Amino acid sequence: MTKILKIGLAGLGTVGAGVVRLLRDNAELIRARAGRPIEIVAVSARDRSRARGISLSGLKWCSDPLELAADPAVDVVVELIGGANGPARALVEAALDAGKPVVTANKALLAEHGAALASHAEVQHASLRFEAAVAGGIPVIKALREGLAANRIISVAGILNGTCNYILSRMQSEKLDFASVLTDAQQHGYAESDPSLDIDGIDAAHKLALLAAIAFGQVVDFAGVHVEGIRRISQLDIGFADALGYRIKLLGIARETKIGIETRVHPAMVPLKSPLAHVNGVFNAVVAEADHCGSLFLQGRGAGAGPTASAVVADLIDVAQGRDVPVFGAPIASLGARPSATMDKHRGSYYLRLMVVDQPGVIADVAAVLRDHDISLESMLQQGRSPSEAVPVVLVTHDTQEAFMRAALVELAMLDSVVEPPTLIRIEPS
Amino acid sequence: MTKILKIGLAGLGTVGAGVVRLLRDNAELIRARAGRPIEIVAVSARDRSRARGISLSGLKWCSDPLELAADPAVDVVVELIGGANGPARALVEAALDAGKPVVTANKALLAEHGAALASHAEVQHASLRFEAAVAGGIPVIKALREGLAANRIISVAGILNGTCNYILSRMQSEKLDFASVLTDAQQHGYAESDPSLDIDGIDAAHKLALLAAIAFGQVVDFAGVHVEGIRRISQLDIGFADALGYRIKLLGIARETKIGIETRVHPAMVPLKSPLAHVNGVFNAVVAEADHCGSLFLQGRGAGAGPTASAVVADLIDVAQGRDVPVFGAPIASLGARPSATMDKHRGSYYLRLMVVDQPGVIADVAAVLRDHDISLESMLQQGRSPSEAVPVVLVTHDTQEAFMRAALVELAMLDSVVEPPTLIRIEPS
Repeated sequence: MTKILKIGLAGLGTVGAGVVRLLRDNAELIRARAGRPIEIVAVSARDRSRARGISLSGLKWCSDPLELAADPAVDVVVELIGGANGPARALVEAALDAGKPVVTANKALLAEHGAALASHAEVQHASLRFEAAVAGGIPVIKALREGLAANRIISVAGILNGTCNYILSRMQSEKLDFASVLTDAQQHGYAESDPSLDIDGIDAAHKLALLAAIAFGQVVDFAGVHVEGIRRISQLDIGFADALGYRIKLLGIARETKIGIETRVHPAMVPLKSPLAHVNGVFNAVVAEADHCGSLFLQGRGAGAGPTASAVVADLIDVAQGRDVPVFGAPIASLGARPSATMDKHRGSYYLRLMVVDQPGVIADVAAVLRDHDISLESMLQQGRSPSEAVPVVLVTHDTQEAFMRAALVELAMLDSVVEPPTLIRIEPS
Repeated sequence: MTKILKIGLAGLGTVGAGVVRLLRDNAELIRARAGRPIEIVAVSARDRSRARGISLSGLKWCSDPLELAADPAVDVVVELIGGANGPARALVEAALDAGKPVVTANKALLAEHGAALASHAEVQHASLRFEAAVAGGIPVIKALREGLAANRIISVAGILNGTCNYILSRMQSEKLDFASVLTDAQQHGYAESDPSLDIDGIDAAHKLALLAAIAFGQVVDFAGVHVEGIRRISQLDIGFADALGYRIKLLGIARETKIGIETRVHPAMVPLKSPLAHVNGVFNAVVAEADHCGSLFLQGRGAGAGPTASAVVADLIDVAQGRDVPVFGAPIASLGARPSATMDKHRGSYYLRLMVVDQPGVIADVAAVLRDHDISLESMLQQGRSPSEAVPVVLVTHDTQEAFMRAALVELAMLDSVVEPPTLIRIEPS
């Protein structure tokens, strides 16, 4: 089996150029592991003349990416254009129509159209692989879909967005506020000029939706993910987290509950005993809890040319070897489609920070509101005294239902002594 | 593809019973992910009447495990007998002779006879899989062999023996000495009555030999692994490790050097900044450094019925789906057979503890010996004063060559003021 596996590559940004470079750098080793050579034969990108630090000589240039799907010289299409619709989606559909395997790093596309695309791939008996779409170089899709395939998964939780983790890590280690770290991250290329996909949690939610579909054998349900970003995280809360033995991380969490699969992305207070608390900078990490295997923790580089290309080429080697796997780990017909659990039924413990006027009776008022909503406290922290100004009061609750917390928050916000909207951060694992 | 995959299982100890239980507990889910049912049809073990907490009714009992290889009703043989030779080896060879895929958890067998067995499997076009042989429930074989397949691996280092990690963790957290923790571990079933395979590093060396073969594309070379166990680790060194910001761990390390692949198992001082320093109790963990992917860290349960069965059944699901992979990640003909690098050429930094008489001039004598061997010091620590007794002096060196350290040790041991054989522990990563 020495027939060359011929690749048509769409998208020559950082990752695309990384794939070209990796296939050349490690050609001999990849040939041994794939059982045959893997070579790019045709490429497509918006701008042919852009400097990328790689030679494109000898490769067919396609001004329209759809040519890659149609070209009989292309065995496999690699889609690195990005975006949930437009040319990326058109290319993947055209390639599957032509019965060609597709390898993509496109989390948005899979999260929003994963069910339809998986059906399409299944009907066409064409492979659709997306290791690079989640957690970059960490082979987490393979670990969940194959490595833990014998297990019922209980929960998956992860740090899935390197930009957010970089910002939160620097806020914590350098005592800087969100806005200044974001600006600095943008200047150094760690955050986009429009950072909203990252910092509002959308990117992490795309990835979580894919992990949840595989882990729980469900049709991918991006719309069912509860999403909160990190814009409202303040230095004050970072400091209280430190004092209480937590780190604030943007987590994606999917877990089985009695009322359905909960999928949510939000900032969380992570206890220092959790390995996720110690994942800093641009690293990503995932913890899976499985019924027979127990806990599995994976950590690695979540983005960048090298790690993402590593994941793309791992998928290509699997294609070259004919190692096939259903898109979401099991045939579409066997996937469930239970509605996601809603957050009002969520149970957990909470960090609650109030800014209150520093006068007698305030704590009693706050405690009464919580009591009236059946919320019991694990601890309370008040730092500093300032009779004329607002001071922070931090409360950590025992397990309670989110609906109760929400109702209590409304009442707390109405107290005369509470002078700012309360800040609520979930504690995970609680 | 709903043809049942029929399993013949040899060995019904903890892991064997765990496999039977897992295949029953999660039968429906496994059927969806494997594309067909996986069922045990025949079993073999030494003692038919032993209570195992599982029903064997409906399963064919084979008093000779070789019957499983010969039985036309058996599609795949699962070997959980253990041992590098004897019935385990005979069964695996017979199954491969019959062209049947083999799934095994037998690290000793693969480490000692891996090259011959891989050739045998290749000639017979039969799969030989051993995810369960290394790090229990962590899918580290799959991660290295498939997930990082696009990369040149630079190094692999891991905590590969749960018994040793349990003992060292308790020595550290409870300030107990080696002998008493070992006795306690034996009483609680965390260590065997003959613990030497574990505590002398042999088990970790078996596993490391397998990881190194896959990571570096080399013929497995167990004999080339340098092995030291943990018997000589004292509470004194555990305490100094704490003081210096290290944890003592039994590591298996394989790395590419200019003079060949270094493979070694020994206690190491692991800096607290390394994730391996924080892996406690019976957990296993592996860090791989890859040229494009960067660093990948995996942590999970390294032993026990559930995690090991999880790995065995993951292999069975791959077999059911026809996902084939060369035994060591690449065809035998493409594997290298460079001799392993010898330890005298090893370079690294060292922790050195001497017991010296507490009198003027001792440190000068010690420093002179090290200087004469071109060894420079990063730090020195002397705790306590006791003019009439021996006191410990700890030295941490900069990078040096092991042969120089060994020569210096001989001279240090001969100094009148040095009253015990010096203790040397390598610092990793140095």
